[in-house]
Amino acid sequence: MSSITSWNFPTNIKIGSGSLNQISGICKDLKILKPLIVTDKNLQNNAIMQDLKNTIVNSSIPLNIFSKVDPNPTEKNLDDGLKILKNGGFDGIIAFGGGSALDLGKLLGFMVAQKLTVWEFEDVGDNWKKANTNNILPTIAIPTTAGTGSEVGRAGVLTDHLNKVKKVIFHPKMLPKNVICDPNLTLNLPKNLTAGTGMDAFAHCLEAYCSPGHHPMADGIALVGMKLVKENLIEAYINGQNIEARQNMLSAALMGATAFQKGLGAIHALSHPIGAVYNTHHGTTNAIVMKKVIDFNKSHIIDKIEKLAIFLEIENGFKGFIDYIEDLCKNLNIPKNLSEIGVNEDKLELIASMAIIDPTASGNPKELDFNNTLNLLKECL
Amino acid sequence: MSSITSWNFPTNIKIGSGSLNQISGICKDLKILKPLIVTDKNLQNNAIMQDLKNTIVNSSIPLNIFSKVDPNPTEKNLDDGLKILKNGGFDGIIAFGGGSALDLGKLLGFMVAQKLTVWEFEDVGDNWKKANTNNILPTIAIPTTAGTGSEVGRAGVLTDHLNKVKKVIFHPKMLPKNVICDPNLTLNLPKNLTAGTGMDAFAHCLEAYCSPGHHPMADGIALVGMKLVKENLIEAYINGQNIEARQNMLSAALMGATAFQKGLGAIHALSHPIGAVYNTHHGTTNAIVMKKVIDFNKSHIIDKIEKLAIFLEIENGFKGFIDYIEDLCKNLNIPKNLSEIGVNEDKLELIASMAIIDPTASGNPKELDFNNTLNLLKECL
Repeated sequence: MSSITSWNFPTNIKIGSGSLNQISGICKDLKILKPLIVTDKNLQNNAIMQDLKNTIVNSSIPLNIFSKVDPNPTEKNLDDGLKILKNGGFDGIIAFGGGSALDLGKLLGFMVAQKLTVWEFEDVGDNWKKANTNNILPTIAIPTTAGTGSEVGRAGVLTDHLNKVKKVIFHPKMLPKNVICDPNLTLNLPKNLTAGTGMDAFAHCLEAYCSPGHHPMADGIALVGMKLVKENLIEAYINGQNIEARQNMLSAALMGATAFQKGLGAIHALSHPIGAVYNTHHGTTNAIVMKKVIDFNKSHIIDKIEKLAIFLEIENGFKGFIDYIEDLCKNLNIPKNLSEIGVNEDKLELIASMAIIDPTASGNPKELDFNNTLNLLKECL
Repeated sequence: MSSITSWNFPTNIKIGSGSLNQISGICKDLKILKPLIVTDKNLQNNAIMQDLKNTIVNSSIPLNIFSKVDPNPTEKNLDDGLKILKNGGFDGIIAFGGGSALDLGKLLGFMVAQKLTVWEFEDVGDNWKKANTNNILPTIAIPTTAGTGSEVGRAGVLTDHLNKVKKVIFHPKMLPKNVICDPNLTLNLPKNLTAGTGMDAFAHCLEAYCSPGHHPMADGIALVGMKLVKENLIEAYINGQNIEARQNMLSAALMGATAFQKGLGAIHALSHPIGAVYNTHHGTTNAIVMKKVIDFNKSHIIDKIEKLAIFLEIENGFKGFIDYIEDLCKNLNIPKNLSEIGVNEDKLELIASMAIIDPTASGNPKELDFNNTLNLLKECL
């Protein structure tokens, strides 16, 4: 594996150890003279934040950081950021962090050009066509986890804190102009986050691959993404300092997010409301329900899973694949079931009712209704 | 397979029977009021040209056609087109045809905004950074063959007729804004073109997959692209009216061209000079040399080809894959060797010397030098 490689789809991606140093050249190409760095609150005092600061200062780019980004970013975070952005004469965004910082960075670059409120751009119908496309600021995305793949996505999630719901805000121009995937930034990711975000990447690939939409490019990307997870996640978990494993997990993450425009399914349809009600970790929740969801969909996906098992060099077809997921979760110390992360019987009906209207439910191979979803949730308890 | 699907990478793609009808909506989205239609000379009186005209007229888009596009477009074609473009108040390009029309359409949209000559943007080093990026016209690409994949490429090939060389002109903004892949437009493609262009798509996928670069997304796309060729090319060849097979070949073509940014190799390094010297069909030439090139690279790619054979459900590993290529070519009535398309011993040294400096040579798994390339050419005679 050569040290730094350039990929040009779905956007411009630099990947490899040391690629962070290319930030000054990228700013120059994008004609960004004064970027606003948007980062997670909890990264403020992290060593990798210092790496970024040093790189920025050495590039003679002015250092301006906005770090009021909550783990689930809100309207308030957006408004605070917009004030700084509008008053500071900034001409670009460097979004640095996990999914939250990347999403908020993308949202800031987009919203600074809009007159309508952010909720007018919720990902429903053709809302995105209402946007003003002039003066949207270019975003450079630098992920520090390997899971969500927000760095290659055209949407951002924002919590409407009045109504206590997460909303997806979409516009094609929210896709970052450039992405820097430097595995050095992920070497010290804690074990549980390595596991949870890695399983999120796997879930994206797996659901995209199983979803019945017609998108052979997404299928191919998902297949190889799963292979990368199979060959690297356990190693990245056990030996976090393995740069190659970390880089391959960064690849798998952005491949999952590229592939899932084909569709997701019940893993996400369950995980979203469970996360909303119990504030559980998204990727970890995906991992917990994965095996049961695949079994639930069996009659619709058995051929696909058998081919996938061959590709992943897993023996015993469908059964072998289910066993593989079980072993993988065990080796990553993923909790065995939803009970272990605090979900209980009481709210299962509420969760089932939320799951069947989740936007990802329609991508599931087998149709979800209230009863079969409730049964599926009980199986996962 | 649903009738029309949207894909959003590497660009915006509408694929499916009847997707041609979406042209008016796409023009509206791109704010194109007066497009120039750029098409191949030999499509002028073709039935599919009439389909396009009817669709345009029904969309109340003004009908303006530039069809002075030679099979290997030249500077002259470009200059003629630029005059029309500059004097006509056009605000976008609809490139309709095979690789030549698509390339020239993309070049026109790009060059209309430039002050430098086209040769200043030859794909060497950072030449593309010299371009003026304002006022480049948006291109909508509509392929009528399934092979080159120019519809998803960021380059165009132009023949420098003074120096008798083909040059690749590159700029990221030459990537069409939208692509329409309507299989109806390819139903009457003659058998020999179906075979040759289909094998071009296969060669793009195969060389990208074998090339040693690090690009797992390209690998996944190439794998599934080859599967689509395996499952559809013979059918499209035998039964040209099979819409599903035709659509899958359109997918395979654009997947090949998406994947080959990872790299190509000796198939193309040989085929380019052979085409330049003997004016042979590019895809057909690729098909003729394919088997020998794979065998030439054997020691470097045996593991990859064995995995590929498993994925394509071909028995007997490397040997089985070579046999598969041989059978495929036979079933498509591809000439058996280079002699059958007029290549003879006399110019082999010239071709070898051109091949080793072809830009694609560096992507070959095994290093090409004059002697081993000459021997390889002799094997293909």
